[in-house]
Amino acid sequence: MNLLYAQAGGMTAVINASAAGVIAAADARRARIGAVLAARHGIVGLLAESLHDCRGIDTEALAATPGGIFGSCRFTLPAQAEQPALYDRLFAVLDAHRIGVLLYNGGNGSLQVVARVSEAARRRGHPLVCVGVPKTIDNDIEACDCCPGYGSAAKYLATSMREVCRDLASMTSRKGRVFVMEVMGRNVGWLAAATALAARDADEAPHIVLFPEAPVDESALLARAEAVVSRLGYCAIAVAEGIRRADGSPVRARARGDGHLRFGGAGEEIARLVSEALDCHCHYAAPDYLQRSAAHWVSAVDHAQALAVGRAAVDYALEGRDGVVAAIRRLDDEPYRWDIVPVEAAAVADLERRLPPTFITADGMQVSEAGRRYLAPLVEGERLVDCADGLPVHYSRKLPGLARKLPRYDGWGEDIVYARQDETP
Amino acid sequence: MNLLYAQAGGMTAVINASAAGVIAAADARRARIGAVLAARHGIVGLLAESLHDCRGIDTEALAATPGGIFGSCRFTLPAQAEQPALYDRLFAVLDAHRIGVLLYNGGNGSLQVVARVSEAARRRGHPLVCVGVPKTIDNDIEACDCCPGYGSAAKYLATSMREVCRDLASMTSRKGRVFVMEVMGRNVGWLAAATALAARDADEAPHIVLFPEAPVDESALLARAEAVVSRLGYCAIAVAEGIRRADGSPVRARARGDGHLRFGGAGEEIARLVSEALDCHCHYAAPDYLQRSAAHWVSAVDHAQALAVGRAAVDYALEGRDGVVAAIRRLDDEPYRWDIVPVEAAAVADLERRLPPTFITADGMQVSEAGRRYLAPLVEGERLVDCADGLPVHYSRKLPGLARKLPRYDGWGEDIVYARQDETP
Repeated sequence: MNLLYAQAGGMTAVINASAAGVIAAADARRARIGAVLAARHGIVGLLAESLHDCRGIDTEALAATPGGIFGSCRFTLPAQAEQPALYDRLFAVLDAHRIGVLLYNGGNGSLQVVARVSEAARRRGHPLVCVGVPKTIDNDIEACDCCPGYGSAAKYLATSMREVCRDLASMTSRKGRVFVMEVMGRNVGWLAAATALAARDADEAPHIVLFPEAPVDESALLARAEAVVSRLGYCAIAVAEGIRRADGSPVRARARGDGHLRFGGAGEEIARLVSEALDCHCHYAAPDYLQRSAAHWVSAVDHAQALAVGRAAVDYALEGRDGVVAAIRRLDDEPYRWDIVPVEAAAVADLERRLPPTFITADGMQVSEAGRRYLAPLVEGERLVDCADGLPVHYSRKLPGLARKLPRYDGWGEDIVYARQDETP
Repeated sequence: MNLLYAQAGGMTAVINASAAGVIAAADARRARIGAVLAARHGIVGLLAESLHDCRGIDTEALAATPGGIFGSCRFTLPAQAEQPALYDRLFAVLDAHRIGVLLYNGGNGSLQVVARVSEAARRRGHPLVCVGVPKTIDNDIEACDCCPGYGSAAKYLATSMREVCRDLASMTSRKGRVFVMEVMGRNVGWLAAATALAARDADEAPHIVLFPEAPVDESALLARAEAVVSRLGYCAIAVAEGIRRADGSPVRARARGDGHLRFGGAGEEIARLVSEALDCHCHYAAPDYLQRSAAHWVSAVDHAQALAVGRAAVDYALEGRDGVVAAIRRLDDEPYRWDIVPVEAAAVADLERRLPPTFITADGMQVSEAGRRYLAPLVEGERLVDCADGLPVHYSRKLPGLARKLPRYDGWGEDIVYARQDETP
């Protein structure tokens, strides 16, 4: 029986650590697991029979490499009842390669895939065991205390905010100065909240944090920014890209046109608003992809958890726990203790965990003490990074494709397949 | 005889390492140097008699802290002939505190201060020795092979570009994907060029680099981007904020209004242009201040050079070399060897060193081999950073102000003073 691993959704700095955890755990269970295979670009590669053999991968180097070594996809798998032929193909590929375990590494959308494939297998009486490996910098999977990928993005953003604070505090000008950093988070403010760890007191950045969960009150925001600028001479604001006004309309600098432009915009709009109202100098930063790929500065806790959920998923699969996700559970805040428990994928798939109201202060513009207590352990610890010529070394060996055993598949529409088949090996 | 040190201009991740170098070298020359003093906010603090005593500063912690611990200013010091009273005040403060050495740590504008104060002292027959300590992430001081601050910003940007490349390579979509990172550089492309170190071959990011020194040819840019996207599925572009069109007009997304908004804009405009023309998905990053304050990821070479120019400046001062700047000289590319030589501040002040044409490929969109050879050693080496609770520890002790000996000074106009006197201790 072979094991198939696949990555899906947006990348993180540590998703490859989960891959390394899977490969290492499977290697240690060679008596019960044959080959460890990986699908290229997630479920899309599985349908296309675009597979790799993971033999010979240097798991230590892999675990320090950002991005997803096997490629990812964003693919909404329809239910079996809607497109049974898609599932016929899927199980044909699994059978052709004697795959008895499917480990799917992704966020909320990917756990939907786990739930649906698992359900389809049961309906077909197929012995496949499908397990979810959680991953998302958005930290928005229900029933997971935290999600691998989040802690490292959080550490990167909090570190950046603290560093910029030293720079801001150095400069001087007749006018005040405002710094705005826009972070990812269309619907949830977990990453914005993480920046608050940079501040040890009210004088340190970020002085204001804006969340999608708390509607922006412009006059309260301006009053707060003005108070900070008149006290310190500057003000740093962290803005989640998905912040909204009280009427529910998104805050952003301009329309997104025909949908091609993916610029956040909310940070720029807040920067414009505050600097014009306060007659201040203004700087605006948008780390964008940098915040989810900064493998040179991961959280050691996050990295360990990413490895561990990969290993746990292998264990769950061998225990026959079909349809679960390996969820991180918090046992204690301080000292921080955690373990991993199986959670039903179908119960959490496609939900979205928002910041609890208790993590946001009553004014909606800062992280509460409860929020800080939650966040603090997730950014703990540093990891040494292998460098050559002054830059991090990443695992980037071209992986040979596994020989195809089935005819080429053309049974999908362009509307549901984002990967071109010619991208597959 | 006391020594006065001051910081000016935009901050870097290692300017405090130069401060630490000055303090440590002066401590080692206690027989010839009395107190080491520092001015708050550069020359502005000197005029305001806003000074600190550096005794007791933990130079090792200081050297790992971004921003400028003593505060900076952007101050265009008029020549003595234009505003003699300003110089009367300046020398009165120096004399009141028995200051015989002034070390000024800054970029091109700050070296103008060195040249003018030095000239003023000579005209007055004053024994002051004034020496420049170079610093700028822009790397644009003439007669310096490189400038402290640049190597660390270069390493940060090249690392970020390499990390994002792994992320880009993981994703897939029917449409191509474009990633644009805007870096600092209004008139010079040194930082944009540094991102090229991320790529070990033509398939790695950045695939295109745009410099202020090479006018943007839109049709050539689009053709190149299209070729890269059709080969790889994605294309990464590094854009200096100050890029221009062939007619000399700046490329940017929109007007800067009344001058308050400091958004670069060029990166966004390139992102819009390319993604619309190629019908691609597009992401846009603007690290802004993050690139000049990322002390968690400095170049060890840059850090050593920042320390060394601080130490050398003390030596030059004690040798009576008035009006010079401690310039880094390259002796060899590989293995990289460098030393420090005195260069006349007046000869380089207020100039701006642009990328030499030989560092840019003929098409104007990449760094040449000569450029890569120049850049490579500057990002070498990593430094361990002290962390607490998962975030870097910075030196942020409040420094007590030195007691004033002169009456408060009101002889400057708001037009030349950016610092409010009430900001001084």
